[in-house]
Amino acid sequence: MTLAAPDSLREPLRAPRIDADRLWARLMALARIGATDKGGVCRLALTGLDGQARELFIRWARELGCTVRIDAIGNIFARRPGTDESLPAVGTGSHIDTQPTGGRFDGNYGVLAGLEVLQALDDAGIRTRAPLEVAVWTNEEGSRFVPVMMGSGVHAGAFPLEHALAAADAGGVTVRQALRELGHDGAAPAAVADGAPRFGAYFEAHIEQGPVLEDAGVTIGVVTAALGQRWYDVTVRGMEAHAGPTPMGLRRDALLPAAALMQKVREIALAEQPHGRGTVGCVDVFPSSRNVIPGRVRFTVDLRHADEAGLARMDAALREAVRALSCPEVSIEVEQVVCFPPQAFDERLVGLVRQGAEDAGLTRMDVVSGAGHDAVYVARTAPTAMIFVPCKDGISHNELEDARPADLAAGATVLLHAMLAQAGVAD
Amino acid sequence: MTLAAPDSLREPLRAPRIDADRLWARLMALARIGATDKGGVCRLALTGLDGQARELFIRWARELGCTVRIDAIGNIFARRPGTDESLPAVGTGSHIDTQPTGGRFDGNYGVLAGLEVLQALDDAGIRTRAPLEVAVWTNEEGSRFVPVMMGSGVHAGAFPLEHALAAADAGGVTVRQALRELGHDGAAPAAVADGAPRFGAYFEAHIEQGPVLEDAGVTIGVVTAALGQRWYDVTVRGMEAHAGPTPMGLRRDALLPAAALMQKVREIALAEQPHGRGTVGCVDVFPSSRNVIPGRVRFTVDLRHADEAGLARMDAALREAVRALSCPEVSIEVEQVVCFPPQAFDERLVGLVRQGAEDAGLTRMDVVSGAGHDAVYVARTAPTAMIFVPCKDGISHNELEDARPADLAAGATVLLHAMLAQAGVAD
Repeated sequence: MTLAAPDSLREPLRAPRIDADRLWARLMALARIGATDKGGVCRLALTGLDGQARELFIRWARELGCTVRIDAIGNIFARRPGTDESLPAVGTGSHIDTQPTGGRFDGNYGVLAGLEVLQALDDAGIRTRAPLEVAVWTNEEGSRFVPVMMGSGVHAGAFPLEHALAAADAGGVTVRQALRELGHDGAAPAAVADGAPRFGAYFEAHIEQGPVLEDAGVTIGVVTAALGQRWYDVTVRGMEAHAGPTPMGLRRDALLPAAALMQKVREIALAEQPHGRGTVGCVDVFPSSRNVIPGRVRFTVDLRHADEAGLARMDAALREAVRALSCPEVSIEVEQVVCFPPQAFDERLVGLVRQGAEDAGLTRMDVVSGAGHDAVYVARTAPTAMIFVPCKDGISHNELEDARPADLAAGATVLLHAMLAQAGVAD
Repeated sequence: MTLAAPDSLREPLRAPRIDADRLWARLMALARIGATDKGGVCRLALTGLDGQARELFIRWARELGCTVRIDAIGNIFARRPGTDESLPAVGTGSHIDTQPTGGRFDGNYGVLAGLEVLQALDDAGIRTRAPLEVAVWTNEEGSRFVPVMMGSGVHAGAFPLEHALAAADAGGVTVRQALRELGHDGAAPAAVADGAPRFGAYFEAHIEQGPVLEDAGVTIGVVTAALGQRWYDVTVRGMEAHAGPTPMGLRRDALLPAAALMQKVREIALAEQPHGRGTVGCVDVFPSSRNVIPGRVRFTVDLRHADEAGLARMDAALREAVRALSCPEVSIEVEQVVCFPPQAFDERLVGLVRQGAEDAGLTRMDVVSGAGHDAVYVARTAPTAMIFVPCKDGISHNELEDARPADLAAGATVLLHAMLAQAGVAD
């Protein structure tokens, strides 16, 4: 273990360097907690396994000389003091809860890249002017407790602390109970509005969870924004009838307009390139009998866009398509069930990420985040940016999730450069 | 109860007349066995309730002076002797088992219309030259035991008796056991090939189970043929991926070609009018998550046509569409799982049905049967025709199934005319 050398013994400044092996070793150690037979991780938020992982993070952070603070929603902050403690902290982090059949890198990478940055600074004997903090946000995945991105959401005021604490899992256990059981029901205020410290800047490193970087053969994704999302439930109602005795002309088949809409969702997204995305993920057909014309079809629509105007155009196009396909024989209802606005990241911080990749001699490209991340909520309270690294075949939320040690180290290097540039090196 | 007057007391010949109220009363009495709260019937094949219904039929048949024969698959034949017992019987009938949420008319009507014909002849003091038989075919619905149309299928040699007897329900009870328990494991041979008597002609009256007659405002459907059916399972395989981070251009969405195929099924049917029918009844999407691009979609296709060449064209068009939509990113497999060939009914018998409607002054139109019926199997062994009457909104296999007493009586009148014309009135 290397601690920052005390001032009295200060050696000449060395260039800080990310240790790829050390980062990988910590990732693999964390991945053993809840490891699955297929090489993934099952460590749902605030379970005993999550508690073990949280304790391991705290131990590592304390070994690096950090102080550790836990807030009322269980977010953990490991703090490395700056030389000017009046400055707001430069934060980084992510989450260490996983999907039920999750991978080893989603979230975990962002947290451990943060610790690796601190240790690299220690190794190089560098102190920053602003304090640095590594955050572990509670229940990002939302697999056990809804809403998702719970810890960062409470921090940013997306929903109230009480709402989050009262959320119960399928067995009726609440977040409040689960936090108490782990002893992670911290005393520190969770919401910025309640006095939680606001970051001076926040960077989050994450595997891309998509195929863009790998497809382009690029190491660093400079994330300029997170796509806004609108989720819908669509219900098409016709009349079920026997497939045999009912001629084509006398049918009220709910599936045909549904199928047309499914294709329309793709067209709507294609009209909004490069960032428009449209997906139908669930389809339920009733009565679901081989020789019965479907009387009712329900399906989901997920529309995403980088800017609000684009998302509004997509919404309008969907509703127009629904209008055009509705008729006296078949009715169609659209209900919007979720809405996340697009979130542009801070231009100056995005510039620091870009510069960090430049300085480290890494290939880079601007990308958008198609998925939600804790950083998207944090961005509501502080200047924020994200760094993506490739993951194998773009696969995530899957035990097969994989990433190369060199890419993970490259992302951490960019994180190090950006945090250092933001926090400032103490004289 | 009126029996045919003995020869010695013969009165002048009266025109036989269907009694609409009596037919309706028998239908309602039978519908009480297994009646559901919603006005339907749940009387699965060879259950205790089916046994009660079978005994009621037998009682009614014996009250009309019929002899009753039960064959090895439990088919019941009520026989009214002819004056020339060397002639093959003119048969009619249908089934009295129902769907789990079935109606009061499907099948039951054909059986009780047959009894009403016998009673009308009795009332009029008419004896026929050929004997008449009313058949109750075992397990037409196939809801409890597969294959469907079991009794008529064994009779016609569509599958072996042993295969049918060995069929087990979800609880492991076999047809053989269920028949024994009811005492309906008859001694008479079931298959024509094993010596079961072949009908000289067979007529089946049935509710249409579709909307054509009601839509056209016509009372009698003269059924010229039963559509052939080909059933398929289609599996589309792409790659599941996150809806957010995966740009449109890098997707392998299994749902899009599936949706295109669903619409193509309709086009294929529309190209084969008036009798072509194409239906997608079941759709299963995996992993079925709102924000995951579907990696696999399975759906069913049901194609129907009145002639084999047309059905073959539809099959070829489906396979061509699959070829056209397949690509390296998304594979599509089609497996044919069921095939019933089209069955044209006997032209002379169809003519008798047409003439019967004509003579009774009833509106009529030629129709095809889109669904399977016992008559479709019987047609493999004997000249066969069917008579359809309207049912409310074309709804069947549903507790809401309904039909008007006058229409039911009209169908029975046509059945009476046709059977009498075929069997011949004894001098």
